[in-house]
Amino acid sequence: MAQKLNIVLLGSGNVATQLALALKQRNCNILSIYSKTIANARTLASKVQSKATSTLTQLPQNADVYIVAVKDDAIEELLTNLDFEPGLIVHTSGSVSSSVFTTKFPNYGVMYPLQTFSKTRSIDFEKVPILIEANSTKSLKLIRRLALLLSKNTVVINSEQRKAVHIAAVFACNFTNHMYAISECLLQQQNLPFSLLHPLIQETATKAQKSSPPFLQTGPAIRKDKKVMNQHLSFLKNEEGFKKIYTLVSKSIVDFTNRNEGK
Amino acid sequence: MAQKLNIVLLGSGNVATQLALALKQRNCNILSIYSKTIANARTLASKVQSKATSTLTQLPQNADVYIVAVKDDAIEELLTNLDFEPGLIVHTSGSVSSSVFTTKFPNYGVMYPLQTFSKTRSIDFEKVPILIEANSTKSLKLIRRLALLLSKNTVVINSEQRKAVHIAAVFACNFTNHMYAISECLLQQQNLPFSLLHPLIQETATKAQKSSPPFLQTGPAIRKDKKVMNQHLSFLKNEEGFKKIYTLVSKSIVDFTNRNEGK
Repeated sequence: MAQKLNIVLLGSGNVATQLALALKQRNCNILSIYSKTIANARTLASKVQSKATSTLTQLPQNADVYIVAVKDDAIEELLTNLDFEPGLIVHTSGSVSSSVFTTKFPNYGVMYPLQTFSKTRSIDFEKVPILIEANSTKSLKLIRRLALLLSKNTVVINSEQRKAVHIAAVFACNFTNHMYAISECLLQQQNLPFSLLHPLIQETATKAQKSSPPFLQTGPAIRKDKKVMNQHLSFLKNEEGFKKIYTLVSKSIVDFTNRNEGK
Repeated sequence: MAQKLNIVLLGSGNVATQLALALKQRNCNILSIYSKTIANARTLASKVQSKATSTLTQLPQNADVYIVAVKDDAIEELLTNLDFEPGLIVHTSGSVSSSVFTTKFPNYGVMYPLQTFSKTRSIDFEKVPILIEANSTKSLKLIRRLALLLSKNTVVINSEQRKAVHIAAVFACNFTNHMYAISECLLQQQNLPFSLLHPLIQETATKAQKSSPPFLQTGPAIRKDKKVMNQHLSFLKNEEGFKKIYTLVSKSIVDFTNRNEGK
């Protein structure tokens, strides 16, 4: 049996929390949790029997992997302040290139878990795609070992692909959630509960996991039903923002069909 | 025990098909299925041991309920050509006002199942909200009986509310599916499978059913992370349509937060 992996986790947010819990469950040693705010480091450390620190110089320097799971715009500064050479260092960001490591780290990579995380809602990591990238065969071997501990759905991609995936995730998660938010708002204005839409939301998501979304497109836009669309726009007359989205997304649905049909 | 309901179904599309199957399962007699295209009427009729016709004058005139489940813009013409007075007539549309019946029908209403239907994928009607409307207490009693056969989640609403629900459904289903379609396209361009996004899509939908979407909003827009947003827009430089949606929806996410926070 392979030796337990010794891990240092830098970060205490949503991703760091879920990673720490999952790695601990998979029998890794989490040697230390770093956070700028010591209270946050301590909260997470207490959940995974780890030490906590807010001082980079106090981190153990002999861990197998250092996982940087801080906010995107904090990664660079953190790396600048790391004054030793870690065995292997990875970040978990969807949008930061792996070249952020190149200045001083010999072994590095990325381990991007493609999921939306919150601190309190536990995630079944088995089903989360882990998109990995490495600067060398040696780094890849260890990153893959770590990723496979978390999920069987582990895929090697490059930084360009990761950027595309991250944008795709913005559409499929962030923008989708905003569509939900608007729909909730429209129901609230009529004193109707959002729960009315739950079965529809679920069915729409379920179908997309069984077929290709363009084939599933329904509604007035794809039918080019101008009468209904105009009724909707007139109903939304006091909601300038919603109207703009309604118009643009409806147009995009039609353009997308034309493009797929080669028109 | 109440007598079996005798039903005539006008229409043979997605909604008509799923309604017919569910009503048959709940022990209703489906006396006849009407469709302009006799082959379609026959296909559906054969599944629910019903008769089929493409001639309105051949419909039995003694059914308890006539359910009009044809395309929105075909309802009015169909009603004009109906030359007898049905006991009770309802349509199933989200966007057509109940006033469409007022010219000549004494007992009418609406029974709008809030779900996305296809002919081949069977739906668990138990969980589908049925939004009903009736022109009188007498009509309401029978529509409610019929709706409750299908689903316990039966709600009485007015035409104005139904219009809002229908628009909300366009956002939560049709527009959401388009967000999925764009995300699939972005992955395809990088030779990556859409299945990578399935867990994220499911988790986003699951969360929305447990909490209010504005509280769940994540991503660069809500963080006002201009650096990442600009990177994304620059990545999408050859996708003018996607860029426009990215910009508008990101702005809307910010506006929506400001509005909810009373800014």
